[in-house]
Amino acid sequence: MIKAGVIGATGYAGNEIVRLLLGHKDVNICWYGSRSYIDKKYASIYQNFFQLVDGKCMDDNMAALADEADVIFTATPQGLCASLVNEEILSKVKVIDLSADFRIKDVAKYEKWYGIQHPTPQYVAEAVYGLCEINREDIRKARLVANPGCYPTCSTLSIYPLLKEGLIDPSTIIIDAKSGTSGAGRGAKVDNLFCEVNENIKAYGVASHRHTPEIEDQLSYACGKEVLINFTPHLVPMNRGILVTSYASLLNKDISYEEVRAAYDKYYEKEMFVRVLDKDVCPQTKWVEGSNFVDVNFKIDPRTGRIIIMGAMDNLVKGAAGQAVQNMNLLFGLEETEGLMQIPMIP
Amino acid sequence: MIKAGVIGATGYAGNEIVRLLLGHKDVNICWYGSRSYIDKKYASIYQNFFQLVDGKCMDDNMAALADEADVIFTATPQGLCASLVNEEILSKVKVIDLSADFRIKDVAKYEKWYGIQHPTPQYVAEAVYGLCEINREDIRKARLVANPGCYPTCSTLSIYPLLKEGLIDPSTIIIDAKSGTSGAGRGAKVDNLFCEVNENIKAYGVASHRHTPEIEDQLSYACGKEVLINFTPHLVPMNRGILVTSYASLLNKDISYEEVRAAYDKYYEKEMFVRVLDKDVCPQTKWVEGSNFVDVNFKIDPRTGRIIIMGAMDNLVKGAAGQAVQNMNLLFGLEETEGLMQIPMIP
Amino acid sequence: MIKAGVIGATGYAGNEIVRLLLGHKDVNICWYGSRSYIDKKYASIYQNFFQLVDGKCMDDNMAALADEADVIFTATPQGLCASLVNEEILSKVKVIDLSADFRIKDVAKYEKWYGIQHPTPQYVAEAVYGLCEINREDIRKARLVANPGCYPTCSTLSIYPLLKEGLIDPSTIIIDAKSGTSGAGRGAKVDNLFCEVNENIKAYGVASHRHTPEIEDQLSYACGKEVLINFTPHLVPMNRGILVTSYASLLNKDISYEEVRAAYDKYYEKEMFVRVLDKDVCPQTKWVEGSNFVDVNFKIDPRTGRIIIMGAMDNLVKGAAGQAVQNMNLLFGLEETEGLMQIPMIP
Amino acid sequence: MIKAGVIGATGYAGNEIVRLLLGHKDVNICWYGSRSYIDKKYASIYQNFFQLVDGKCMDDNMAALADEADVIFTATPQGLCASLVNEEILSKVKVIDLSADFRIKDVAKYEKWYGIQHPTPQYVAEAVYGLCEINREDIRKARLVANPGCYPTCSTLSIYPLLKEGLIDPSTIIIDAKSGTSGAGRGAKVDNLFCEVNENIKAYGVASHRHTPEIEDQLSYACGKEVLINFTPHLVPMNRGILVTSYASLLNKDISYEEVRAAYDKYYEKEMFVRVLDKDVCPQTKWVEGSNFVDVNFKIDPRTGRIIIMGAMDNLVKGAAGQAVQNMNLLFGLEETEGLMQIPMIP
Repeated sequence: MIKAGVIGATGYAGNEIVRLLLGHKDVNICWYGSRSYIDKKYASIYQNFFQLVDGKCMDDNMAALADEADVIFTATPQGLCASLVNEEILSKVKVIDLSADFRIKDVAKYEKWYGIQHPTPQYVAEAVYGLCEINREDIRKARLVANPGCYPTCSTLSIYPLLKEGLIDPSTIIIDAKSGTSGAGRGAKVDNLFCEVNENIKAYGVASHRHTPEIEDQLSYACGKEVLINFTPHLVPMNRGILVTSYASLLNKDISYEEVRAAYDKYYEKEMFVRVLDKDVCPQTKWVEGSNFVDVNFKIDPRTGRIIIMGAMDNLVKGAAGQAVQNMNLLFGLEETEGLMQIPMIP
Repeated sequence: MIKAGVIGATGYAGNEIVRLLLGHKDVNICWYGSRSYIDKKYASIYQNFFQLVDGKCMDDNMAALADEADVIFTATPQGLCASLVNEEILSKVKVIDLSADFRIKDVAKYEKWYGIQHPTPQYVAEAVYGLCEINREDIRKARLVANPGCYPTCSTLSIYPLLKEGLIDPSTIIIDAKSGTSGAGRGAKVDNLFCEVNENIKAYGVASHRHTPEIEDQLSYACGKEVLINFTPHLVPMNRGILVTSYASLLNKDISYEEVRAAYDKYYEKEMFVRVLDKDVCPQTKWVEGSNFVDVNFKIDPRTGRIIIMGAMDNLVKGAAGQAVQNMNLLFGLEETEGLMQIPMIP
Repeated sequence: MIKAGVIGATGYAGNEIVRLLLGHKDVNICWYGSRSYIDKKYASIYQNFFQLVDGKCMDDNMAALADEADVIFTATPQGLCASLVNEEILSKVKVIDLSADFRIKDVAKYEKWYGIQHPTPQYVAEAVYGLCEINREDIRKARLVANPGCYPTCSTLSIYPLLKEGLIDPSTIIIDAKSGTSGAGRGAKVDNLFCEVNENIKAYGVASHRHTPEIEDQLSYACGKEVLINFTPHLVPMNRGILVTSYASLLNKDISYEEVRAAYDKYYEKEMFVRVLDKDVCPQTKWVEGSNFVDVNFKIDPRTGRIIIMGAMDNLVKGAAGQAVQNMNLLFGLEETEGLMQIPMIP
Repeated sequence: MIKAGVIGATGYAGNEIVRLLLGHKDVNICWYGSRSYIDKKYASIYQNFFQLVDGKCMDDNMAALADEADVIFTATPQGLCASLVNEEILSKVKVIDLSADFRIKDVAKYEKWYGIQHPTPQYVAEAVYGLCEINREDIRKARLVANPGCYPTCSTLSIYPLLKEGLIDPSTIIIDAKSGTSGAGRGAKVDNLFCEVNENIKAYGVASHRHTPEIEDQLSYACGKEVLINFTPHLVPMNRGILVTSYASLLNKDISYEEVRAAYDKYYEKEMFVRVLDKDVCPQTKWVEGSNFVDVNFKIDPRTGRIIIMGAMDNLVKGAAGQAVQNMNLLFGLEETEGLMQIPMIP
């Protein structure tokens, strides 16, 4: 059995990692890290685990944990994982970091968008960006996996085949994203109170959201040149789910549905977790809720020569904990889908 | 492998049976019955099953199905299952009926509350009321299981130990229940539109709801004499979940928390799916969402001599599909929890 | 023009007082009190007032305010208003306190349930409980009005005629209440985050909620003897609205609908803001949202000899700010409905 | 007093017209038209009006109504108003049509997008598009007002100054819109059930929504040449509110915030109902709920040379009934804001 430790176990992503690992036949959780709740029973914070989890919350002591665990998940704010990792830890244990610390290869860019100094830039180069469908082989060999952000996962996977196959003009990409509120975390902030979010929708982080450079990096890798995009996230009154609606100009205005569809099939036909929907079916976040699936589809608008690309995903599963477990499966040579075949829950 | 057929597969309960059976290692689904969608792909009605279910919707032909299947689930309106079963079918296949047709032993009472004539009263006596924690042994030997209603499951399980141990006055029981909207089904009715339910709460079926006699029957069995109750359901703006808040006068006003707790432990300590929460922790529907758990707890009010009993449950799982699968496990001698260990999903 | 000051203007009740007073033809607001946001523009906290309110937030200085204003609304936590009022202030200005400080005549009872010492018990006796439909004449002559709690308003108004006319056994009253989340205030607490409240329902404060003694007092006055009740509030995933479902045993089991109806009409036929619905129509919170109406109705259950009483109300209007304005109208001899004829908003 | 008739009074827009007119000091409603509910009390369909509206539902008899009323509002499906108007009616009464029948000047375009034949194309030319802030003077003189669609109102008003002042490239406009569910109407459809909409978001009508040509027409008028756009609406789990997020390339990449702001102020500084928010404040639908306001703002992204434009509005007020009443005020020479100064309701 693989022994797993979770640092930041009482955030929503941490809670979701625990939910998934409890159903994973090859893993035992040995450490529920939560600085805020040290010594409290984990199941008293998340009563869903009542009678299912017996452990208590422990400190975020990565050095001690490295001696006990085979893999560490860090579901913590930016900067924490980077401040804790070192050569000794990485030599003992695999680390899957759900923060942004190791996602951006250009340290200066990271520091500018996140407004913090990177404490361990020496590990940025070796960290593998854990977008499994794209970097599968590199992930298998990694010590340190940078688990992708929620918006970047959904944005990249839905646009990737179009850039890879050179079908769209990269300079025209606009990504309008909508997220459930769990993406904002479990911190006690007025803006995330029920009465502030319910019956409301707003854009936030317009032209300044931190996931922008991460998405741009991934899209740039796909097309082989630097891409700048517009990315606008919105807060939607629902718990889970991300919907990404993207726009780009087609390089060939006369391209057919079938040709574009072939591009998607080329990359995703054999992928379990990326589902390209039937023609004219628009993805809905409800259809993937609780699961590791990303549903994608597209629509060509011959009037404007643009393509509209849609992707839907559960931000806490494929956008965080599910992808982290998928990465763990790759790191340990397990079946990639192990512990991840939850069926989306309707309604 | 057990071959299962689902009649009424495109309702919310039918959809949930499919979700659970797809994750059950000993079952294959051989029939997706849905009169309204014959010949349409099942996954086109419920896109959550896209690339997971390949079958098409078929007619509600129970005779044909009895030749193919080992077990039939009927998730259909009142009267349908009763009009289809016959000796030949029951001799070939186990039937788990999620409607009310075989729940009430007094046929006249059924006909009065449901306003329909019972087409096959001859099977009422042999049908076993499938409340697994209470009728486990009888269920194992049954041909026809009457799967309990959602409100009756949560109400009965939360009150049962108090009546069985003679701690409360049965004539004082009042049950105030709150349900998510999936309990109202998937029919296109104005009253169930998003804009009518959202930002709203109301009581309905006051002093007349059809689950009243079913609850009264079960409570009567528990205490050995006829019980009349008040039962008031309410519609809550959420998809899933039932919360039951019940009130009764204690027979001994000086009874302690520990004594009442002992009564609950006597019946539920070894039950996987009934969780008696720690003292002063109130059940929340979110803590059981997507799972087969029922969370119960109670509070003694020494000022009034009453006890307040609370139970929370996912109406589509333990209140419908989950309990149906639990019954199937019992009928076929499988591990009772097989396919039912979904962890509640938060948030 | 009446000059009004609002202390606690940035809570949800304070915001609602401002909304209502802006539409009141006889009132100008001269003071937006908010300790947390001193010197910030009030409309920057509540952008609904953008270009409608120009004032800045000021300190909770009741002495200074008493010189400027004709009436002060205190929409602040328990204890604050009581710690600020004194003879000089009360001689200059009318005070309408939305906290519980002056609602309970028995100071010892107040101190026990609220766990604080009452700083100015000498004003408790003169304070008038501002339930307008019942204490109208006393309110007109008051200096200090104790604006009723949300649950007590809805509970008392819906049960009052039955007790006043001696139709029910006071010792059997059980009140099961459901409230939207704005009742929990605008404080940044994890329990009130969107993701914790949405898709969830729970009871809270079981057998211990602070509104219990306030309701008991009012019901006791109505029937002329001390009443103990069970009161259980629940948190519902909606912004506004309270639904109260109450139960009591009828003293005469053979009483007719018409006789009970006559009792309600006796007290409410001429009341603008209490609407007794037509037979068999259950109140819904949506039908009163944004308005000062309380909708009430009842159902007799001849099987159990009990009556089920329902009341629905907007907790921020009739349950707080609306009733406060109604009290102000009485205090200043204005038309009682002035500024309060908002039509409920659907959907 | 102006006598007003409402055809289609039991839809959500019709209900909202009634709500607003009840608060309008110069109007009496003389006709509640609703084919589906003839002879039923209007307040029995919408219990919010209990004791406030006494009338019964009547047939959609526009000829009879023209003899009784001074103004007729038609809140009915496409094609109905156009099939009922004639010279006699228009000579007797003002008609404000909330359907799309008279919004698009090119009848062929209307027929193509709406898939129906226009029954009275002879009135299309004289009908005035009732976007009050832009066509104020023409509206005053009209007999027949085409009340704008919800998406077109919010889209046009938020983009208009940029096109009028020549600041953006019209060929680059992309409009990503999000709407509450009341926009889908009160018809009983599975897709609009609570359980289908709640905890879900999806795009719909991608590259084919009928409001596209209406928006394109208005934007074309603003810049003086034909504009083609991408318009993608999304269904959001909330009752009311539209948020429009639009994207366009700036013609001058070095333009400053102040210069763009000046363009907005030029057109909206004196407008009561269009509020240009302070710098960096993003519009939220909650801030305008229940009111006739449209909140707009913009953000320049110097990295991409694009401008992101945001507009928020209550789809049933400024997007339907409120604008209709504003048009009525113009038609009858009343104060334009009469009956429309509802303050947005928070939370």
